[in-house]
Amino acid sequence: MSADRPRKVLIIGAGPVGALTALSLHRRGWEVELWESRYDPRGKNAAPSNLRSINLAISARGLEALRSVDPSLAEQFQNEAIPMKGRMIHHVDGKQESQIYDPINGQCINSIGRPLLNQRLVESLPPSIKIRFQTKLSRVDLDTKIAYGSSPEQKDADEHGTPFDLIIGCDGSWSKVRTSMMRMERMDFSQSFIPHAYIELHMPADPSRPGGYAIDKNHLHIWPRHSFMLIGLPNKDGSFTLTLFLPFSSLSTLTTREAASRFFIEHFPSAVQIVGEKRLLDDFENNPRGNLVTINCTPSAWSSHALLLGDASHSMVPFFGQGLNCGLEDVRVLNSVLEKHQISSTTNAKLGETDIDLELALKSYSVERQADLKAICELALQNYTEMRSHVLSPLHHIRRFVDSALTRILPSRPSKLHLSLTDPFPTKRVKGWTSLYEMVTFRPDVPYSEALRKEQAQKEIMAWTGYISGILGFGAVGFTGLRLARKWLDRN
Amino acid sequence: MSADRPRKVLIIGAGPVGALTALSLHRRGWEVELWESRYDPRGKNAAPSNLRSINLAISARGLEALRSVDPSLAEQFQNEAIPMKGRMIHHVDGKQESQIYDPINGQCINSIGRPLLNQRLVESLPPSIKIRFQTKLSRVDLDTKIAYGSSPEQKDADEHGTPFDLIIGCDGSWSKVRTSMMRMERMDFSQSFIPHAYIELHMPADPSRPGGYAIDKNHLHIWPRHSFMLIGLPNKDGSFTLTLFLPFSSLSTLTTREAASRFFIEHFPSAVQIVGEKRLLDDFENNPRGNLVTINCTPSAWSSHALLLGDASHSMVPFFGQGLNCGLEDVRVLNSVLEKHQISSTTNAKLGETDIDLELALKSYSVERQADLKAICELALQNYTEMRSHVLSPLHHIRRFVDSALTRILPSRPSKLHLSLTDPFPTKRVKGWTSLYEMVTFRPDVPYSEALRKEQAQKEIMAWTGYISGILGFGAVGFTGLRLARKWLDRN
Repeated sequence: MSADRPRKVLIIGAGPVGALTALSLHRRGWEVELWESRYDPRGKNAAPSNLRSINLAISARGLEALRSVDPSLAEQFQNEAIPMKGRMIHHVDGKQESQIYDPINGQCINSIGRPLLNQRLVESLPPSIKIRFQTKLSRVDLDTKIAYGSSPEQKDADEHGTPFDLIIGCDGSWSKVRTSMMRMERMDFSQSFIPHAYIELHMPADPSRPGGYAIDKNHLHIWPRHSFMLIGLPNKDGSFTLTLFLPFSSLSTLTTREAASRFFIEHFPSAVQIVGEKRLLDDFENNPRGNLVTINCTPSAWSSHALLLGDASHSMVPFFGQGLNCGLEDVRVLNSVLEKHQISSTTNAKLGETDIDLELALKSYSVERQADLKAICELALQNYTEMRSHVLSPLHHIRRFVDSALTRILPSRPSKLHLSLTDPFPTKRVKGWTSLYEMVTFRPDVPYSEALRKEQAQKEIMAWTGYISGILGFGAVGFTGLRLARKWLDRN
Repeated sequence: MSADRPRKVLIIGAGPVGALTALSLHRRGWEVELWESRYDPRGKNAAPSNLRSINLAISARGLEALRSVDPSLAEQFQNEAIPMKGRMIHHVDGKQESQIYDPINGQCINSIGRPLLNQRLVESLPPSIKIRFQTKLSRVDLDTKIAYGSSPEQKDADEHGTPFDLIIGCDGSWSKVRTSMMRMERMDFSQSFIPHAYIELHMPADPSRPGGYAIDKNHLHIWPRHSFMLIGLPNKDGSFTLTLFLPFSSLSTLTTREAASRFFIEHFPSAVQIVGEKRLLDDFENNPRGNLVTINCTPSAWSSHALLLGDASHSMVPFFGQGLNCGLEDVRVLNSVLEKHQISSTTNAKLGETDIDLELALKSYSVERQADLKAICELALQNYTEMRSHVLSPLHHIRRFVDSALTRILPSRPSKLHLSLTDPFPTKRVKGWTSLYEMVTFRPDVPYSEALRKEQAQKEIMAWTGYISGILGFGAVGFTGLRLARKWLDRN
């Protein structure tokens, strides 16, 4: 009989999701190794430009996931991030209109740079976790559970490879672990692009203002223009990271600096005024055009040997600010599944063998999580139309008013403030009235799929209320009309 | 100024679709090169086992596509194939029931082995087409338009590569050309497996019967058993190729020979009787389990440099017998698009340059063909339930009767017998009444998307007829009831 030995997990990708996974499994007693193709974010070499610079909005789900692994992490990030209490809509005429996310309890989402978040998470890892930076996964043999890496110094170094019990792909949208799994497994997979590109622009700090913020610090700023939009998230130094979302087809008409200048002055005069035309156009001309893709795959686990978390299993468009939050939540859900299935920190299975208990646990993770991942990818797509167009419509204001009024009359509250380890989503059915935004953003006790279901049910109630009011209204008009007609007939 | 030179197309994959594409572009005056990873099917080395052995049902769309390139090809195949005039349903009790596909005009689908079809198509290629067998596409640089191949003899042969104007991927479901295109292009892509495996079995010829056919030669045989089924297609030598379709989850319960034996005897006693238990179980144990996948991608063209045809752009499950027919139709549609866009056989563009006219033509092919490919993939999935379950239901018989009666009263006929080169689908809107099966199988003048639309419209008419009959029926019952009640009251 072979003796028990610690389970060994190899995690590919030390982004926020990979780093939190490493910490979480380390806490469960696993032997953890982490590979990252980029530089060490803790070193001097790690200029922010080495990392994706896009700003993130971390909200209750992300914070709850951090808390589930280490409560001090959640606290730390809340201190380093800038709370945003609502959207600030910038109309073409320069008028600004604040739409508060949670008028009743004042809950916020939090702006934080991805590089900083990543750096802090990697810094939180204990030295007993082996981290190899500048190491790419060259190939992985999932049957025998051996991964081969390469680095700039040791291009063909990994002659013997690194054995593991479980490999977890936290390696993003174009995951190499996923590609290897697709060769082993009948995996359903889809990737679908939206016709829009994104381009990052920079709004520098304004030294004449308090804190340097040229526009309100505690809002997510949106310049919605129906088929396209500009958004801005605050940074600690008083600057804002702006992102322009625009169809590739429109972008291809803005080939000259003059055309771009006309475009910005016509649609975003207030941004041009703050940033300055030259700086804005320089950024627009020089910065790369990014794609926006939705990726879904199922199952996200193969045997007891491989698992996908974060963007590797579900890439979504960024319009609900849930990409990172959902990825971190994956780690919390995985943790709860391992706990429920009583997966111990040691294993008796030899490398290359299938570990039946772990296989069942991973399968159960994949099956349980599937509907939620599909739901949030779908909601993120829907919210794009909301952000760039619906926020401008009078109907949107009516809906916000009704939501807000009904939420006060029939409030829906989570049963417990702190979630248990073994039941990641205690609220299976949301009661009372609540807005979709609140469920997705502020209610980590509600699974995404339930948020989607509840929103559809509420929409149906609104529609029926509309029909009935309409019928009663017509009835009243008809009745009044008849009475008037009778009066008129009586007189004549 | 550079002089005109013939356009050079490199086709990857010499299966039926690749071979027909080669012939078609050769006829248009292009310089054609064809790479195939397997052996030359014309040589002695080419045992049928080197090729996919599955039997194919070639029908009007495939024949029309062959005819559009070379009328004698269509004629040749019709002679070599075995016509199947309908389905033969085999019930568990041994009863056989014939369901004729086209009771009015007697149109048939035609059973032919894939190896034979492939061999004949490759044999039809003129010597001026350069064919390289046992040559794999190692990599392709789509920007500079150079492909690098490798073969068993020359593993790193292609140092300088093969330049082309256009590369066409006819390299099947796991297309390498598609993978390369996905790196260049925001391509929407999805692959989705059904939970069923397929396993090929063999029913040998019975020397005591005429022609050796143990069951009727001119039918496609189905043993439908709701969640699984067995089908059989005739071969020229009197044998039948049987295919068992069964969920992987059921398959995993048939681990012993005894379990498999009980399974076949319980569900397919007639097949066991004809084939013999030993032979059937040997095949079942030894033959590989195949996956069934639906693949869609869009766009199927990149710039003027690359295009996908056949399974490389649309893999479908085999239940409508349209996979090959649709792939051959791709060639006919491409031909018509090139004709309409007046793409000449020579080009002035240097290799590596984009050829604007060709780019527009390929884009137009991709856009025009998209809805049809999506429709047939969808219909093929739907037809699986039809074949393994609906054919047993009484409702299916009623629907067949109604379809057949209405088709006689309101016949729908193609406007012309021979289709024009520039308008591949002259029937934009199908008039009269017709069955879905007829439109898909016997009407190459109707695009797949129109077949799907018309079927949905007809289903709606049937549903409304049902509602109205229901209301009239209830009304009649109610009226009679009232009269009876009155009579009873009058008497009492």
